[in-house]
Amino acid sequence: MIAIERAVRFEEVDAAGIVFFARFFGYAHEAMEAFFADVDGGYAGLIVARKVGLPAVKTAAEYASPLRYGEVVRIETTSTRIGGRSADLRYVFACGARRVAVVTHTVVTTDLSTMRSCEMPGDVRGALERHLAPVSGA
Amino acid sequence: MIAIERAVRFEEVDAAGIVFFARFFGYAHEAMEAFFADVDGGYAGLIVARKVGLPAVKTAAEYASPLRYGEVVRIETTSTRIGGRSADLRYVFACGARRVAVVTHTVVTTDLSTMRSCEMPGDVRGALERHLAPVSGA
Amino acid sequence: MIAIERAVRFEEVDAAGIVFFARFFGYAHEAMEAFFADVDGGYAGLIVARKVGLPAVKTAAEYASPLRYGEVVRIETTSTRIGGRSADLRYVFACGARRVAVVTHTVVTTDLSTMRSCEMPGDVRGALERHLAPVSGA
Amino acid sequence: MIAIERAVRFEEVDAAGIVFFARFFGYAHEAMEAFFADVDGGYAGLIVARKVGLPAVKTAAEYASPLRYGEVVRIETTSTRIGGRSADLRYVFACGARRVAVVTHTVVTTDLSTMRSCEMPGDVRGALERHLAPVSGA
Repeated sequence: MIAIERAVRFEEVDAAGIVFFARFFGYAHEAMEAFFADVDGGYAGLIVARKVGLPAVKTAAEYASPLRYGEVVRIETTSTRIGGRSADLRYVFACGARRVAVVTHTVVTTDLSTMRSCEMPGDVRGALERHLAPVSGA
Repeated sequence: MIAIERAVRFEEVDAAGIVFFARFFGYAHEAMEAFFADVDGGYAGLIVARKVGLPAVKTAAEYASPLRYGEVVRIETTSTRIGGRSADLRYVFACGARRVAVVTHTVVTTDLSTMRSCEMPGDVRGALERHLAPVSGA
Repeated sequence: MIAIERAVRFEEVDAAGIVFFARFFGYAHEAMEAFFADVDGGYAGLIVARKVGLPAVKTAAEYASPLRYGEVVRIETTSTRIGGRSADLRYVFACGARRVAVVTHTVVTTDLSTMRSCEMPGDVRGALERHLAPVSGA
Repeated sequence: MIAIERAVRFEEVDAAGIVFFARFFGYAHEAMEAFFADVDGGYAGLIVARKVGLPAVKTAAEYASPLRYGEVVRIETTSTRIGGRSADLRYVFACGARRVAVVTHTVVTTDLSTMRSCEMPGDVRGALERHLAPVSGA
C-alpha cells in the first residue's frame, strides 16, 4: 500500500460547497503517480520518455461522505488484480477516521504512439506486485 | 432522452494527448444540468435558490475509445431508475458513429443546508420520469 | 467584435463561492477559439493539423464584479494590435449590464513542433484584421 | 520570501502540450495559500471560519518559457505593496535555473458574507510585512 496526503484546494469545490465528484478521479490519478513513482523515470518518465501510458478502460467511485475545503484527504492505493496488459487499482479516501470514498480503476498498458495495448513493462508489473492486496469477495 | 453536443476544450486533454478520464464526469454533469433544465429555476436555481442538490453516491465509467481535442462529443442522457430519494442516470458518449464511453451516476436529492437526503421535488421526479429508459438486463 | 455567451459551470466556483479568478483566462481562451473559428480547420485545426499555436507571452485581468454559478457571462473579443508574429486580444466580460472583467492577452504565432515563433498565417491575420478595434489611450 | 515546489500534474497541460496559461494563476493561488499558512487557522481557516477572503481585483502574467509535464516548478512569493485593505503579491516561477513566468496579483481583504472590502486582519498584514520586497522601478 502506498499512501499520499492531499489538502483540498481552494478551487476544487463546486457550487454545492463540496469537492466536485469528478475531482476524486483526478486525486486518484495523483495517488497512482505516487504508486508508480519508483518505475524508471517515474510515472512522468513512463509517459513522456518511454511513451507508455495507463489509460483507464473502467473506473468507479462510491462516495461515503462529502469532502470540504480546509480538509486533508489521505489516499491509500493498492493493486487488486494484475493481468497480462491490464491491472486494477483501488484507492481508499479518508479524512481522519472518516471514510470519504473508494475509487476503483482498471488501466491498460498502452503504447502512446499507436494508442494500442502493449506488454506491461517489468517495472510497472513490479510496482503492482509490491502493493497487491486483492479484495476478498469482490 | 436528452442530448447535448460539446466540443472538447483545449485544456481538457492530459499529457497522453487524450481527454483526461476524470473529465468525462464533468461532461456528464453538464449533461445532467441539461437534463434538469426544465425544473423550476433550472438546475442552477435548484442549487442556488432552492438549496437542493443531487450529490453523487456512486458513479462509474467505461471507456471505449479515446477522445481528442478538435472532436465534438454527443452525450445522450436517460434515467434508468427512480427511487424515493435517489435516481440513476446513464450517459452515452459518442463522437459520430464511434462509441466513446458510458457513464452511470446515482444521485440523492439532498438538502444542501444540512447535507441530508430530502424528499425528491416533484419537478425533479417529473424530469426523471419523462426520460426514463431502464437498461434491460442491467 | 466576436461575442460568445457562456453559462458558469457548477464546478467553476471556488471556496469563496465565486468563479475562481484563474477561470477567466480559460473563458478568454474559449472566446479566442470562437474568434478564430473561421480559419482553415478552425482553431482546433490550427493546433492539431497545422501545428501552429498561439501561446501567451503576456496576459492580465481586471475584475470589476464577482461572477456566480447560475449566471451567464457574455464575452466580447476584439484584437487591439497586430504585429508581425504577435497580436493583442481584449476580452470584455459582462453579465447583463454589469461589467464583470476585462482580460488582455498577447499571443505569438508559434510552430508547435519547435516551440519557436513563426510567420503569422494569412487567415489568422485576416481574423485579427476583421475584428481590430484599438483601445484609445491604451 | 516564501517558496513552494510543485510538480506539474498530468492533466494540467493543454492540446499544445504545455501547461495551460491559465493554470499559472491556480499555481499562484497555491503559493499564496502557503504564503498565508501562518495566519490563525491557515488560509483555509481565514476563508471558512473567519469568512475573510482575498479576491483578486487585478492580476497579470508574463511567460518566459513553456512548462511541461514531468517538470517541477519552484514559486517564490513576496509582497510588493501593502495598502489599507489591499496588497500586491508577486510570484516568480522557475524550473531549475530557467525563468518560467512572473505573476502579479492585487488582492483586497473582503468580508465574504457581504462581498465588501474589510479591514485587513492583523495576522494577514503581518504575513505581508514579513515577506515585503518592493520591486525597484516597478
